[in-house]
Amino acid sequence: MRPEEAVPRLRALGFGEADAATLADHFLDAERRGSLGHGLSRIEWLEGLDGIDPRARPTRAVREPGYERWTSNGALGYLTLAAIVAAQLLDPPERARLVVADAFPTGALGYWARKLADGGLVAALTATSPPRLAHPEGGPRLAGTNPLALGVPSSDGRPLVADVSMGKVTHGDVLRGAAREEDLVPFGGEQAHKAFALAVGLQAVVDALVGGEGYGAVLLVARPDADPVPGLRGRAAGVRLPGDR
Amino acid sequence: MRPEEAVPRLRALGFGEADAATLADHFLDAERRGSLGHGLSRIEWLEGLDGIDPRARPTRAVREPGYERWTSNGALGYLTLAAIVAAQLLDPPERARLVVADAFPTGALGYWARKLADGGLVAALTATSPPRLAHPEGGPRLAGTNPLALGVPSSDGRPLVADVSMGKVTHGDVLRGAAREEDLVPFGGEQAHKAFALAVGLQAVVDALVGGEGYGAVLLVARPDADPVPGLRGRAAGVRLPGDR
Repeated sequence: MRPEEAVPRLRALGFGEADAATLADHFLDAERRGSLGHGLSRIEWLEGLDGIDPRARPTRAVREPGYERWTSNGALGYLTLAAIVAAQLLDPPERARLVVADAFPTGALGYWARKLADGGLVAALTATSPPRLAHPEGGPRLAGTNPLALGVPSSDGRPLVADVSMGKVTHGDVLRGAAREEDLVPFGGEQAHKAFALAVGLQAVVDALVGGEGYGAVLLVARPDADPVPGLRGRAAGVRLPGDR
Repeated sequence: MRPEEAVPRLRALGFGEADAATLADHFLDAERRGSLGHGLSRIEWLEGLDGIDPRARPTRAVREPGYERWTSNGALGYLTLAAIVAAQLLDPPERARLVVADAFPTGALGYWARKLADGGLVAALTATSPPRLAHPEGGPRLAGTNPLALGVPSSDGRPLVADVSMGKVTHGDVLRGAAREEDLVPFGGEQAHKAFALAVGLQAVVDALVGGEGYGAVLLVARPDADPVPGLRGRAAGVRLPGDR
């Protein structure tokens, strides 16, 4: 798929102009960053999904100073997170806020963390997906690849964005044929039990905070009290930091 | 060191009765769980440290519904976290609360997450330590082993507690001679860049939220809306879940 096909094909799925642009921006950003499993291949994947409601809109069900609960109402997780991120940037927390939502699929979480960090907010975001990771010693698949994305603003205009999936490969790479299903295991080789523990721990945190039977996202946003990234980049002396291109 | 020596030797360092008991409980719990690098060997390590002030007490400098900032005032990180955890259990957040503190050393973070989960709170806790992890391809040491601990209460009385250091080995294991300094690298083998990204990301999050030049801890506590652990344990069908003995 060529980049210019993205919006027309999303429009053909029934998405309105603004939502198609939001979705296309996420997919094209993933392509530019080499996260092809979160890129344009997902449009074909969406075209094959049953039951998408392109007119569904997420709503903020609970709004308190340090807590928000959002409900997807059947909207795609991408659009739910886009609405959440826009709302945080419009009305940042005084200090910190926990945001929980049912949301699936949520895409490249670093994309959302970067938007928040670009807007001056520290962000930590995780989200669940269908159980694909089993314990490295065997047994049933118990946790999604459950990435953790961390975004920290920087006065040099280059926020630090770490976005780590607990899988050795991503499900998106399996979908697009770039990785094998049997490599959908916790990353870490001999120490894969560590990535498994993180995946299961994040799964339980999201399930406990979001509730319900589906998949969800948990986001912490906070105002920074300090600006550590320029100093860290200086000490790195040319080593590539997470999120740098 | 025998377990019964712990309290007398801590008392000999000048710690009061309650603080010595708090410290000993942490070290003995680590011994029982096999985290020997966080165990009794740390008492000898404390005996060799300069400038410990056994009478220092942490204080809560900012107290808002969804945010607290604590100051160690020179108290050990263990005692700072103990005070923070006790305060959260005494006065849990309505929904969620972010707690930040300067704190070092903080010990086995799973110990604190478990206390909060035993008290019915979801907890996510990270803390920084001196820079020991370099990028797997080389360069300066940029991040501590910066563990992430996640605790989720369970109605079956067995909370899920994941506690993952981003290092292949712990600094405590190097201190007690059970691991080599050169193994103090990000875990993950061929994918060690993932653990490095998490370590650097957590470093920047803590440094941005805590500020100052030293090391710090960032804790999210929240009330659960659901009880996912018994179901997860059932699906695990005998596979050991994080934090189970």
